[in-house]
Amino acid sequence: MNSNIKITILGNTAAIPKRGTHLSAQLIQVNNESFLMDCGEGTQMQLINYGIKYSKIENIFISHLHGDHFFGLIGLVSTYHLLRREKPLRIYGPPALEKLLTTQLEAANTSLNYKLIFIGVETDSKKLIYESSNALVYAFPLEHSIPTHGYCFEQKQKARKVNPDFINEHNPSINDIKKVKAGGDYVTSTGEVILNKDITISSPRPLSYSYCSDTKYFEKLIEYNMGVSALYHECTFDISLQKKAEARFHSTASDAAKVALKANVGQLILGHFSSRYEDLEVLLLEAQDIFPHTILSEEGMELVLESGS
Amino acid sequence: MNSNIKITILGNTAAIPKRGTHLSAQLIQVNNESFLMDCGEGTQMQLINYGIKYSKIENIFISHLHGDHFFGLIGLVSTYHLLRREKPLRIYGPPALEKLLTTQLEAANTSLNYKLIFIGVETDSKKLIYESSNALVYAFPLEHSIPTHGYCFEQKQKARKVNPDFINEHNPSINDIKKVKAGGDYVTSTGEVILNKDITISSPRPLSYSYCSDTKYFEKLIEYNMGVSALYHECTFDISLQKKAEARFHSTASDAAKVALKANVGQLILGHFSSRYEDLEVLLLEAQDIFPHTILSEEGMELVLESGS
Repeated sequence: MNSNIKITILGNTAAIPKRGTHLSAQLIQVNNESFLMDCGEGTQMQLINYGIKYSKIENIFISHLHGDHFFGLIGLVSTYHLLRREKPLRIYGPPALEKLLTTQLEAANTSLNYKLIFIGVETDSKKLIYESSNALVYAFPLEHSIPTHGYCFEQKQKARKVNPDFINEHNPSINDIKKVKAGGDYVTSTGEVILNKDITISSPRPLSYSYCSDTKYFEKLIEYNMGVSALYHECTFDISLQKKAEARFHSTASDAAKVALKANVGQLILGHFSSRYEDLEVLLLEAQDIFPHTILSEEGMELVLESGS
Repeated sequence: MNSNIKITILGNTAAIPKRGTHLSAQLIQVNNESFLMDCGEGTQMQLINYGIKYSKIENIFISHLHGDHFFGLIGLVSTYHLLRREKPLRIYGPPALEKLLTTQLEAANTSLNYKLIFIGVETDSKKLIYESSNALVYAFPLEHSIPTHGYCFEQKQKARKVNPDFINEHNPSINDIKKVKAGGDYVTSTGEVILNKDITISSPRPLSYSYCSDTKYFEKLIEYNMGVSALYHECTFDISLQKKAEARFHSTASDAAKVALKANVGQLILGHFSSRYEDLEVLLLEAQDIFPHTILSEEGMELVLESGS
């Protein structure tokens, strides 16, 4: 099993697709478990075009109900049905999304082959909304013109490993090892207590990836994204359009870089570009001026986050 | 002004998009007036990719509420809003479609810049539903698993022209010419009545294009498509899957060709292909065996119908 986080950019254009580009959607794989983040129109075509095994997706997260982030969802839900999917599909998103999906299925007289489980996301703080043996997913509020959430995908922290030196020195029983693995201390034959932390080794720090689209800059964003391995942040505009960005509850490249800098993230990935930009370099340079570890997302790009320790 | 009918195939794959293909949508131009027929997911991207001036579309027709025929509509409606469209947009389709659109706009808190006029289409016979100085559009019922309509686009018949020989011979007044143009007879100075048909020339027979997707074969289809210049007809399956076609209320290539032959159409254009076919030649040959003037539609294809007379 791969211990990493892999992100595939399926679309990163804001609002209106430019020739040859697609709207917001990403495949996020945490230790090989596949998640879909946002689902703009054409996402199913992108999944097919990139040869992605999209039957493996069991959880989809939708940031908000602007069309460029979810109009492709009903098509994907329907395609799963036509492909005779049997596994349940969980969709996390704004509560109003559930009715939008069910009314469209009713209009087509479609009763899905598989179970669609809808989980309404509404929170005013960072909150754990999903947990598996691979991953944790948190939701947190963004500040946009309609209710919007960011999502943070994190590797599940592995248990500490028993130190081989301790086994060699103390020759513990199987039961004792089980206790230590579960976090317990060890008591020697002479009654001496050895603390768990002294006979175990910590696993690498879990990787984390945070997705913030769409939002204007606000201070709490820093706390929500503190120390993540990589942050995908919208930058619809450059700083010359700061006022427009604020009025529309969007960010500039500088806003995104400020969050990255103050939250001390590992890497900043810019996305959700206004189709007015023929050359995105202006956005990249603006952000790098504040936070050098910045890259531009590109359609079809695969990013792999790996643990350094 | 071009006096022709031009069809651009934006997508012709059935149900699930195959790699690199798109779902049902066509731009139909009648004497330069642009209509959109069906609007599968990704249609706005296709319009952009083919460099089509889609702001010129003022009327959209939706055959039925299976997703592969209309899931791209809400995206296009939203894009027109973002592009600050001012001209009204008329959408003709199943009555339930109106609510599907408005609930999605409400969820995004979008109040459109332009007027969206929805016209519910429900008819059990061939009925004129649109008329302009260029075109007539008729709707007629198809037989599919949910209520579905075919549409026929026809050039508006031009008035008969005044014969120049009559003008040279009788030197009529301007008012007399107006009367003749309006269909009246001519009375000479000696009181002789010359019938309108003898002093006017008929305009070419109007071209017509009929779109039938999705439907199973039924006899009334022949009457609805009698004598059209070109017929686009679905052929989801080949004849070896006749039973499957019937059970799913779809047509085989033979069904489509039978309609074309019996309705004596000018040309048959096959489309709405199941993604199971790697090579569509089997469908073409099957249809040509019954109706030789058959072609396969192809994504990006532009077909121009021109008057022979």
